[in-house]
Amino acid sequence: MTALSAGANHPPACADAVIPPSPLRWLADDQAIEVIDQPRLPHAVAWCRLSSRDACAEAIRSMQIRGAPLIGAVAAWGLVFALQQDAGDAYLDASLTLLAATRPTAVNLAWALARLERRLRPLPVADRAAVAAAEARALCQEDVDQNRRIGQHGLQLMQGIHARVQRPVRVLTHCNAGWLATVGWGTALAPVYLAHAAGVPVEVLVDETRPRNQGALTAWELGQAGIPHHYLADNAGGHLMQHGLVDIVLVGADRVSRQGDVCNKIGTYLKALAAQDNQVPFYAAVPSPTMDWAITDALHEIPIEERSAEEVRWVAGRLSSGALAQVQVSPDGSPCRNPAFDVTPARLITGLITEHGVFATTADGMRALQQVCQPLSR
Amino acid sequence: MTALSAGANHPPACADAVIPPSPLRWLADDQAIEVIDQPRLPHAVAWCRLSSRDACAEAIRSMQIRGAPLIGAVAAWGLVFALQQDAGDAYLDASLTLLAATRPTAVNLAWALARLERRLRPLPVADRAAVAAAEARALCQEDVDQNRRIGQHGLQLMQGIHARVQRPVRVLTHCNAGWLATVGWGTALAPVYLAHAAGVPVEVLVDETRPRNQGALTAWELGQAGIPHHYLADNAGGHLMQHGLVDIVLVGADRVSRQGDVCNKIGTYLKALAAQDNQVPFYAAVPSPTMDWAITDALHEIPIEERSAEEVRWVAGRLSSGALAQVQVSPDGSPCRNPAFDVTPARLITGLITEHGVFATTADGMRALQQVCQPLSR
Repeated sequence: MTALSAGANHPPACADAVIPPSPLRWLADDQAIEVIDQPRLPHAVAWCRLSSRDACAEAIRSMQIRGAPLIGAVAAWGLVFALQQDAGDAYLDASLTLLAATRPTAVNLAWALARLERRLRPLPVADRAAVAAAEARALCQEDVDQNRRIGQHGLQLMQGIHARVQRPVRVLTHCNAGWLATVGWGTALAPVYLAHAAGVPVEVLVDETRPRNQGALTAWELGQAGIPHHYLADNAGGHLMQHGLVDIVLVGADRVSRQGDVCNKIGTYLKALAAQDNQVPFYAAVPSPTMDWAITDALHEIPIEERSAEEVRWVAGRLSSGALAQVQVSPDGSPCRNPAFDVTPARLITGLITEHGVFATTADGMRALQQVCQPLSR
Repeated sequence: MTALSAGANHPPACADAVIPPSPLRWLADDQAIEVIDQPRLPHAVAWCRLSSRDACAEAIRSMQIRGAPLIGAVAAWGLVFALQQDAGDAYLDASLTLLAATRPTAVNLAWALARLERRLRPLPVADRAAVAAAEARALCQEDVDQNRRIGQHGLQLMQGIHARVQRPVRVLTHCNAGWLATVGWGTALAPVYLAHAAGVPVEVLVDETRPRNQGALTAWELGQAGIPHHYLADNAGGHLMQHGLVDIVLVGADRVSRQGDVCNKIGTYLKALAAQDNQVPFYAAVPSPTMDWAITDALHEIPIEERSAEEVRWVAGRLSSGALAQVQVSPDGSPCRNPAFDVTPARLITGLITEHGVFATTADGMRALQQVCQPLSR
């Protein structure tokens, strides 16, 4: 194992007793979940209830909820609600197909559905719904646990940087890989939260992340936690790295290939290039369900979702009156392109922070990670 | 001379008779100029009249007009209007200082003011205003001529790519370096306009260019000219280059150092990194007044303007009602960073397209360019 941190099997004990905020909660009777309506953030916090397969599918498709781990969790609950209606094989198959098609890029969605299918298919039809709910709850709890361990391993990186620079650690992040993107803690932000809790001073540079501005979610999370941060245009990160203002780049991932290529929100690749050009370490925080061991060369094998041009054409926000609104930013008649993800080749990545430790994206590092994860992952 | 195009002294003869659109016009009596109010674009075309030094200064400062060449031209007219009030040395000095301070990064501003000062200072006070107006008119006409010649040299590059790919030439551009940024033709877009006019098919990928979304100006210009284009988030360009969807990157410049480092709109550096990583040629279109021969290492010597956080926090556009409005995109309480420019090191640049030909940003190429330009430039 190429563990860049000290000991993969001995994460530092901390924050175990803390219950992190979560964007998902389930009713005691397993008949519905409630999720934070993310498009209304950062200007309003509203929960909405999802109690059917189709409501869960639409919440994923429309990006009412987003973030690879949270997508997986909501898809699992969507399958629970489907089986509460009809647990027969035909409806199980149709529901798996429908839920899997909601977003094409993040692998957690396929992983969560495959995990439930493997567990449920052998069971008598009458037992399936209750077991599915138990499995969905377990999957959510595991996400929180994995992310906390990612945070603990990442904390060691942050402590190392802080010991060297002797001032706040300046982290640049892209998109939202905080607790809003998971069931708890977040992936890329878990090390930030644990560092803050451990007294390691951090300052976060938050990429806006056009076109959907998930940076506003990250800035909101950090503001809620009292963590110093700045919000900036996606264009600014390279300049800041050139001037020594970034100590580490931390991002999440939607799918990671066997060779360590990271598929993540569009624009991640540009930041990785700038990090390499300026010798800034670049890490992706990756719980094992985000690994796709079936894919080697992510650039050519992962389907990149092209979303609606309207997401580029219109920007959502809050008017000075306080009302939420959208404004059209591009000219009438100008078509838009909207690829939602890109692939950062392994050669640009310093390491993957997983719940099993930190692994270099070298052939040796990825082989070691595969040995630890694969029994768990597919 | 390292002229990448065929012959620096023999630009192809074309488009000479065409009068290009311009964002600036002057009254016959030299008492005012009219400029397109750029923040209202692309949703409305409105002209506003500037007839005082302070109005010109404020138009530059507020980015009512922008683009290095246009800033230089409007500053020159601002000095004309100042001297029409008071052509004495004290007011001349105060006006030069005031106008030079409106934007710190683009060198055309300092260049235009220095040029007028050199011409005016030796003159009797009574003659200065009239000569200043003549000089401002000449400077505007030279900008149009330089840009047309940049277009002609760039056309040869476009023709070369088209002969190789045998399909439309895919150009990626950042910010707006079209006619709206100059007195006519534009810099980076001049080759696109001349290619389109010459029957070379082009498709332009237009970076949005947050935070001020000058990509909307570029898309609007291209739409007006009937040139195929797509508008995209700044994050998308790297992904498109990875997939072979960009043949050439063409950008403008606000200041270029003696060694060929290009200071341009924030985010340019990230696109240059992606171009290098994917073997896509990367050119900056640079009229000679944009060269700053007094600066060697742009990264450490050029002051980078940090503009108001409000430009990042608020996005301007058009509501579905048709009204222009701004929406706040980032959370209350989250501070923003807003560096307006970055520096792309010469090593990432294939060449500079100047009115004198195309020059590699090698030591030899830059020496050759300096030999051609320096008598003209400062």
